[in-house]
Amino acid sequence: VTGVDGSVDTEVVVVGGGIGGLATAFALASEGRAVRVLERASEFTEVGAGLQMAPNATRVLARWGMLDRVVDVGVRPRRLAFLDALSGEELTSLDLGEGFRERYGAPYVVLHRTDLLQVLVDGCRDVGVELVTDSDVSAVHHDEGGATVMVGDRRVRAEVVVAADGLRSMLRERLDPTPPVASGYVAYRGALAVSELPPEQVPPDLDDVVVHLGPGCHLVQYALRRGEILNTVAVFESPAFGRGEAEWGGPDELDAAFAGAGPRVQRGLASLWRDRRWPMSDRLPIDRWVDGRMMLTGDAAHPMLQYLAQGACQAIEDAACLADAVGRTGADGGVDWSTALTMFVESRQPRTARVQTTARTWGEIWHVDGVARMLRNELFRTRRLDDYTHVDWLYGDQSPIPPRTT
Amino acid sequence: VTGVDGSVDTEVVVVGGGIGGLATAFALASEGRAVRVLERASEFTEVGAGLQMAPNATRVLARWGMLDRVVDVGVRPRRLAFLDALSGEELTSLDLGEGFRERYGAPYVVLHRTDLLQVLVDGCRDVGVELVTDSDVSAVHHDEGGATVMVGDRRVRAEVVVAADGLRSMLRERLDPTPPVASGYVAYRGALAVSELPPEQVPPDLDDVVVHLGPGCHLVQYALRRGEILNTVAVFESPAFGRGEAEWGGPDELDAAFAGAGPRVQRGLASLWRDRRWPMSDRLPIDRWVDGRMMLTGDAAHPMLQYLAQGACQAIEDAACLADAVGRTGADGGVDWSTALTMFVESRQPRTARVQTTARTWGEIWHVDGVARMLRNELFRTRRLDDYTHVDWLYGDQSPIPPRTT
Repeated sequence: VTGVDGSVDTEVVVVGGGIGGLATAFALASEGRAVRVLERASEFTEVGAGLQMAPNATRVLARWGMLDRVVDVGVRPRRLAFLDALSGEELTSLDLGEGFRERYGAPYVVLHRTDLLQVLVDGCRDVGVELVTDSDVSAVHHDEGGATVMVGDRRVRAEVVVAADGLRSMLRERLDPTPPVASGYVAYRGALAVSELPPEQVPPDLDDVVVHLGPGCHLVQYALRRGEILNTVAVFESPAFGRGEAEWGGPDELDAAFAGAGPRVQRGLASLWRDRRWPMSDRLPIDRWVDGRMMLTGDAAHPMLQYLAQGACQAIEDAACLADAVGRTGADGGVDWSTALTMFVESRQPRTARVQTTARTWGEIWHVDGVARMLRNELFRTRRLDDYTHVDWLYGDQSPIPPRTT
Repeated sequence: VTGVDGSVDTEVVVVGGGIGGLATAFALASEGRAVRVLERASEFTEVGAGLQMAPNATRVLARWGMLDRVVDVGVRPRRLAFLDALSGEELTSLDLGEGFRERYGAPYVVLHRTDLLQVLVDGCRDVGVELVTDSDVSAVHHDEGGATVMVGDRRVRAEVVVAADGLRSMLRERLDPTPPVASGYVAYRGALAVSELPPEQVPPDLDDVVVHLGPGCHLVQYALRRGEILNTVAVFESPAFGRGEAEWGGPDELDAAFAGAGPRVQRGLASLWRDRRWPMSDRLPIDRWVDGRMMLTGDAAHPMLQYLAQGACQAIEDAACLADAVGRTGADGGVDWSTALTMFVESRQPRTARVQTTARTWGEIWHVDGVARMLRNELFRTRRLDDYTHVDWLYGDQSPIPPRTT
């Protein structure tokens, strides 16, 4: 597989076999490109638990022929409901039913991250993507004619390298040497079989995605896998982080952060795994995602806080947009990669920057206290339940790259 | 005038000849009581500038036959408008026109404090109140049969003493030894002849009461005296107060506090007097306003921050309510003062406590920054302009003492 003579092993190397990497590989291979995915781990799998797929992502999945399987292994929630974590009052909700599906042309689906990854792996295999595990990329060198990917002492030669190596992207460093920005918030998760839970631990509204908003904390619960699994996420601001301590966000802080929450939230905390946790970070938007023949995508390009549940959705939008750009610049079986990458970044950067920025603000709104909580609650209470204008920009079809003419 | 033998010089002594004291004196004298007002200063006058009379107060003024004169020397504003001080955007407004007047049975009027005081002085003279200046009350002693008011070495004997001696009430001390609570905010005021202002300094909407809301600051402007006077109030949070310094709220801090405000607010600052200022304080509600035959009223009983513009209005409500209570407990020409005072406090304490508490919250809402400002602005923007439900409790007729049957 070495290309010491300058010959090409594969047209595209995708570094990272997470959701963004596999989606990119699938989309480019579907576009006729030869794609190899290099994954550091020994298998394609995802830690974590539930994942929300909004219509801006499920429209893409439908186009890729994956939506039926995704819906089949997931849940189509009835509503996205926001409750005050302290009082228990329901403040507002977003109806995710048929009107929502018609408005955005695709449904809202929640599913297990592993289940989505499996659909993408199967899709990649179907379109001939080379999936290679145990491949820890140490460097990428590029030149006029392409790029060389170093995997230990192996070299893989490609026309273009897509870095889908996530929040802590190694390949991003040459474009942006700054580290991720720790938010000081940490997430605990849990995905437990509903059938094995004590009855009082099962929320009354398993059809809904329920978000309990508290000062400096929130709890999300929804069902996965046809209702068989209860997914729970608890997020809170760590006082130890605020004090600059190296160790922060432990289970003692979890309990303290939710001490003032109502009984329903307290019951929700019982459904968390307590032996691991996810500190939450993002980065500020950057303009440059391309360095020669190496390009960032997904979290490597635009890592975001999870308050809009858009990390995976934006990575899937990226993949579809990149494939569109490639389709529009291809000629005689080849691709004008330079033009395609420029077109991709110009299309995707403003939108993902907006999602990154809005996610931060949305998180602030979720976690306010005092008079700001009073204002937030009153604003939510007085919102019309059939008002979708605040999410049209996010869920609506606003792709600036026109559909392919094929 | 000394009553060393226990005889009574006057039935009621009102300590303090401000708006609350004069209103109380007028209302009690109209009810047939003999009333003497003891004012420390050498004349009945008011420092300060404009004053807002909401319908809960103007309904009382109408009942007292004073409304026509008040309207005649004042202005009936068209709207109460709220603008963002930074962006200049109009966020919402309260229509104060005919629909408002009909809803609450009386108009919204703004006028000069001195003009209102003159109407009350004239009213007091008409109903035989004794108005005594240069009378600095040093103590009140009460016994079974009444109270003795010490004015230097003079003694005035009365059946009951009403302490209307304001925020820094001396007579309140025996019921509440705690000092007023400094908010850390300070007000600058100005009341200037419109005809002498440079044209650019005259706001475009002199028919409105306009409130510019900024982070940690606000500016209010409206016209007084048939539109001849422009009234301006600028309020801001003093950083020096926050640092615990003895000297705080100076003109340098005024300019710095509004440095980020838009051009219209900047022009408004030019219409302030800069040689004096009003630090703003209130107190927490207390339950006990009565000590034997001495009772607190107005700011002495329930001093409040000015964010609801209700200080004078609540003092006028107090006066009307006390007169109602006296009217209901009177028999054979005398008054059961003990019952009347109890009835008064039970009626007034919960309402004024709510106004005190809400004024604090309203001030917080005015002064928010960051995401809370975003929420406040969006809540204001989405409010229906014909929605009065938030002020019904305040402006509506909810007097718990039934009207007199006479």
